[in-house]
Amino acid sequence: MSAIPAATVGRLVTYLRVLTELEQEGVRSASSDDLGAATRVSAFQVRKDLAYFGRFGTRGAGYTVATLRRELRRILGLTRPWHVAIVGMGRLGQALADYPAFDRQEFRLVAAFDVDPAVIGRRIGAVQVESLASLAEVAAERAIDLAFLTVPAAAAQGAVDALAAAGVRGILNFAPVVVTAPENVRVEAVDLSAGLQRLTYYVQAEPATVGEVTG
Amino acid sequence: MSAIPAATVGRLVTYLRVLTELEQEGVRSASSDDLGAATRVSAFQVRKDLAYFGRFGTRGAGYTVATLRRELRRILGLTRPWHVAIVGMGRLGQALADYPAFDRQEFRLVAAFDVDPAVIGRRIGAVQVESLASLAEVAAERAIDLAFLTVPAAAAQGAVDALAAAGVRGILNFAPVVVTAPENVRVEAVDLSAGLQRLTYYVQAEPATVGEVTG
Repeated sequence: MSAIPAATVGRLVTYLRVLTELEQEGVRSASSDDLGAATRVSAFQVRKDLAYFGRFGTRGAGYTVATLRRELRRILGLTRPWHVAIVGMGRLGQALADYPAFDRQEFRLVAAFDVDPAVIGRRIGAVQVESLASLAEVAAERAIDLAFLTVPAAAAQGAVDALAAAGVRGILNFAPVVVTAPENVRVEAVDLSAGLQRLTYYVQAEPATVGEVTG
Repeated sequence: MSAIPAATVGRLVTYLRVLTELEQEGVRSASSDDLGAATRVSAFQVRKDLAYFGRFGTRGAGYTVATLRRELRRILGLTRPWHVAIVGMGRLGQALADYPAFDRQEFRLVAAFDVDPAVIGRRIGAVQVESLASLAEVAAERAIDLAFLTVPAAAAQGAVDALAAAGVRGILNFAPVVVTAPENVRVEAVDLSAGLQRLTYYVQAEPATVGEVTG
């Protein structure tokens, strides 16, 4: 699946969200124009993204919302519940324990870890904070698949190593630092500074156009 | 600047982060291969992204780290401090008030808003929570440029409308809902459920390959 661009995977997730909203509104079919308009890409891009995974829809008739939604859920691996842990129960970790994603069936918060004795043992949201030293044991016991990494930057790489060793396969890294992981572990960075920097590009009063610098 | 792909803007931010790390390590020049390897894209992609903005570097000699870093900061609009507000001071808003981005010069947290009388008046991080009713007044007074939107989904569109009316030009939306904004306001979604769904695509044991569905 390495041939599928990461941007396409990101858009599949967005299409799925739009299809879920359409289904809730009772809409039964949607065209690539409809999906493109709702996600701010071209209809061509929608068709190209979906074409990686086969044929969906009929020319002229568009897509059946329920069917395409089911297929996208299958493609994205959302056909079984995923067990999630939070590593780092400072304010951000505590906020994430309440995140609405955990209200749904697909992601279940099953554990939370910290190294601070003052936090270990506390119940936050649906979980009780455990010592990071027990990660390997707990991960095996509760089949932890994914983790939110919300530790300080200096602790991030060590936590990634421990998560990878414990068999956790996917990590959303909130620590503002680049980490490395084994081939079979997927790390996605959630860098809020980067989010702010993308915003400033778009909202600056006098956007830069052409520069010339030689080394 | 609408011709620049959003993915390119996202990568410029990543190149900047890598260049900042290189500069801190005392590295003086870097090739497109170096930048590509550090950001997991091809050297060709690095050169293509930078070519939108002019000529940087010399064939064979690569880029001067300090110069390219300065140019990227200029392109991204990071040559002046930006004033940021947080709207919604629940756990997530409170966690963001402590976010390391605000330790640096480029982003200054200048205000925080909520509608809950139990939270209004409390000091959290560097700011005191104010009533959302005072948004327009405070935004004008402190020249708020950008906002983190951390309100419940049902309150998100109303808050976006209020922020746009108050002259805020960029919004990072953490509420798990699609919002609309005027043309001159940039909204970027930070959807943590979407982050989890992208992870499951990559870590699912048996990735889907080809499906066929007709509508």
